[in-house]
Amino acid sequence: MLKFIAVAAAAGVLFALPATAQEAEASPPMLTAKQGETVDRLIDKGLESDLAWDVLESLTTEIGPRLGGSDAEARARDWGVRKLKSLGFKNVRIETFEMPAWSRISEAAEITAPFPQPLTIAALGQSPSTPDGGIEAEVVRFRTLPELQAAPAEGIEGKIIFIDEPMARTQDGSGYVAAVAKRGLGAVEAAKRGAAAVLIRSAGTDNQRMAHTGGSVSGGASLAPVPAAALSNPDADQLARAIAYAKGPVTVRLAIETAWTENAVSGNVIGEIPGKTDELIVIGGHLDSWDNGVGAVDDGAGIAITTAAAKLVGDLPGKPTRTIRVVMWGAEEVGIFGGKAYAKAHLDEVDRHVIVAESDFGAGEIWRFDTRFGAASLAKAKPMGDALRRLAIAPGPNTAFGGADIGPMMRAGVPAAMLYQSGTDYFDLHHTPNDTLDKVDPDNLNQNVAAWAAFIYMASEMEGGFR
Amino acid sequence: MLKFIAVAAAAGVLFALPATAQEAEASPPMLTAKQGETVDRLIDKGLESDLAWDVLESLTTEIGPRLGGSDAEARARDWGVRKLKSLGFKNVRIETFEMPAWSRISEAAEITAPFPQPLTIAALGQSPSTPDGGIEAEVVRFRTLPELQAAPAEGIEGKIIFIDEPMARTQDGSGYVAAVAKRGLGAVEAAKRGAAAVLIRSAGTDNQRMAHTGGSVSGGASLAPVPAAALSNPDADQLARAIAYAKGPVTVRLAIETAWTENAVSGNVIGEIPGKTDELIVIGGHLDSWDNGVGAVDDGAGIAITTAAAKLVGDLPGKPTRTIRVVMWGAEEVGIFGGKAYAKAHLDEVDRHVIVAESDFGAGEIWRFDTRFGAASLAKAKPMGDALRRLAIAPGPNTAFGGADIGPMMRAGVPAAMLYQSGTDYFDLHHTPNDTLDKVDPDNLNQNVAAWAAFIYMASEMEGGFR
Repeated sequence: MLKFIAVAAAAGVLFALPATAQEAEASPPMLTAKQGETVDRLIDKGLESDLAWDVLESLTTEIGPRLGGSDAEARARDWGVRKLKSLGFKNVRIETFEMPAWSRISEAAEITAPFPQPLTIAALGQSPSTPDGGIEAEVVRFRTLPELQAAPAEGIEGKIIFIDEPMARTQDGSGYVAAVAKRGLGAVEAAKRGAAAVLIRSAGTDNQRMAHTGGSVSGGASLAPVPAAALSNPDADQLARAIAYAKGPVTVRLAIETAWTENAVSGNVIGEIPGKTDELIVIGGHLDSWDNGVGAVDDGAGIAITTAAAKLVGDLPGKPTRTIRVVMWGAEEVGIFGGKAYAKAHLDEVDRHVIVAESDFGAGEIWRFDTRFGAASLAKAKPMGDALRRLAIAPGPNTAFGGADIGPMMRAGVPAAMLYQSGTDYFDLHHTPNDTLDKVDPDNLNQNVAAWAAFIYMASEMEGGFR
Repeated sequence: MLKFIAVAAAAGVLFALPATAQEAEASPPMLTAKQGETVDRLIDKGLESDLAWDVLESLTTEIGPRLGGSDAEARARDWGVRKLKSLGFKNVRIETFEMPAWSRISEAAEITAPFPQPLTIAALGQSPSTPDGGIEAEVVRFRTLPELQAAPAEGIEGKIIFIDEPMARTQDGSGYVAAVAKRGLGAVEAAKRGAAAVLIRSAGTDNQRMAHTGGSVSGGASLAPVPAAALSNPDADQLARAIAYAKGPVTVRLAIETAWTENAVSGNVIGEIPGKTDELIVIGGHLDSWDNGVGAVDDGAGIAITTAAAKLVGDLPGKPTRTIRVVMWGAEEVGIFGGKAYAKAHLDEVDRHVIVAESDFGAGEIWRFDTRFGAASLAKAKPMGDALRRLAIAPGPNTAFGGADIGPMMRAGVPAAMLYQSGTDYFDLHHTPNDTLDKVDPDNLNQNVAAWAAFIYMASEMEGGFR
């Protein structure tokens, strides 16, 4: 989730908590009593539905890992089409696009002296291969990215940079902003100084012996300038200790093999619950995952939650006022290619987009409802937020981050909302082999479905837009 | 820890909790008031000492993984000699022995149909290599080892057996008895039925994406009859789900490469705190570890705890009555070779061995003090147990398991004690890459040191033996 360009751009959002219309103003009667009852019924149904779990179990079992641009992602698109059709969605199709694609072949690292032992690493996305035989060089440790950025090139040429910066555990994911900068800028900063490679302490909050992968090049359109890999947190501890124990240099051997192709194919899978009008409520998650886990929390959960919620609204008697469009974006992790392709393909119908929202922050419980509405529509946030309070969701600011894949549409002026999941434990699993189905709590998943179903329905039925 | 032959033999011990002399009888004054004060002072010092942590940090950082019979284990022996000498131990030496040695080169598994995706495995100790190109075969799932043991060979020939039995989480480690049977007997049961290989659900209680390795052949003296590997618990879940989802067979490809040599060298490292007599209190842990972690909890902790505790007793004014011998046993994990070699080398001085005790159940807090004393000496368990109660240690039965490495001496008639650590979380880490220093709680480590120092001192000073 949360590709770093988008996050960096929205960094202010994550920290600011302005007074909002949700709290400040009295609520106009924007939902009828009958609509209010329907919202409550959708919440009840969401809390007791097995559908999101079934969708998530099916995706993670039958497809497993599905890296953007890979054959596995193509199988996931076919799965998405089958799943949406079987659930009664209409206009189900794949919108393909081309993209450059990176893939991992192998990775290994070891301390060669003075304390020979293997290290657990993951090559970062867009890392090039090391030369034949790998790179063996002295390690130079920097406690933080800014410390590296302030360092001269002297003494660094030909060496392996080690950025040991730890990551803060936060509910709102704000710790990721700094972590992703370390991951996305380390290779560039290393290359500037003539270093041979960069190792970072994983962008993760756990102490499992698993490295967190993730993109190392903003936008994902090219290879990084030097090989880049993440150490698991225990291995970063170990390397730092080895440096502290050693009386002389600590050398590491790094061997990474990756592949790069300019013209891979990916695509967005789309299905709709047709409304009485052609106005669009666009929701979804990203279908691709990193290659090391099965993408249960990132972002199978988002696919499952939004699909199940839309299905619940589709099951109501009569059509919703607006059309609910579910998008399973492709190739998010490796450069938000699906989000960009969607915006490009649908720019001519941007005015039909009444609101966009993405679920891409795992499967934790939703704790806050953020909006990004026009000033004229801000009062509508309050009845929406009020309806979600029974699910222990607090009203949030009108500065919603939204999601990486909907960023391009948001920048084109489409209002957005964010059903903000708790990220406290999210970065324990994120981008690791540990992103597996057993990590998802079915009750939390259903709280998400309930909130999304209520949100979609209100977004569909409230008169006027949110601009 | 706890090699399965020894555990299986002692299984009765783990479950029985007979009334004991510790509770039943009044305490004769077996410690003088001054000795009682010394016990308390040792406990105070143990609780505030940094020594065990320093020893453990040094071993795990400077050596890391140290598989029995490997070069790394030889470096660990040299480390042990240096460490014991630097701490003032006397008669420091290595007693070498020969052993057959297994090692891991590579391991990989994947579901090939109908849901292609990689699986996380660890080859089990003593697993042979698969043929060139690996083994690709249908998987046949058994819910438990007894279910496999009751099954005929029909339909199994040439297939890959999958024993999906889960492991119970217990404080006393009793869940390991069944788990180790699954691990140690699976290959034999598979071979009996003509199967090509065996996969087991890891002998572990966690849900991390890490497989638990461990011996697959009792005694470790030969290769297993078919390739044998463990799946991480999430991967076992995934394979079971794939079988449930599939309309036809599920096939897996397994590629394992290992090496085997008949004449590797290992050794026990020995150091002593000389006493006024040549009677021996023998304590220690095993120096080797599995190859995938750094052996912090299994069994660097045991090395660190017993070394630090003996050092505290050695720092008292004057010599202890009996000699405290610390043994760092070699090659325990792969067949208890060090424990057997020690017994063989010291059989002629078995009568000098007053008591033996091993720390090999991690770094959790000690919750029970078990003994295995002769009937005539049983009353001495009570004052020992009483002295440990301030550390929240309960009196235990007189049926102490002891430890794998001291099993041969126990069977030769030497009394034993066991400072029983809590195993509730131990099998989350045991035999995995996650066995790293950060998993050790320094406070728990010091509670161990305090208890061991008190125990050693009492064992040294109490008149008469424990036979």
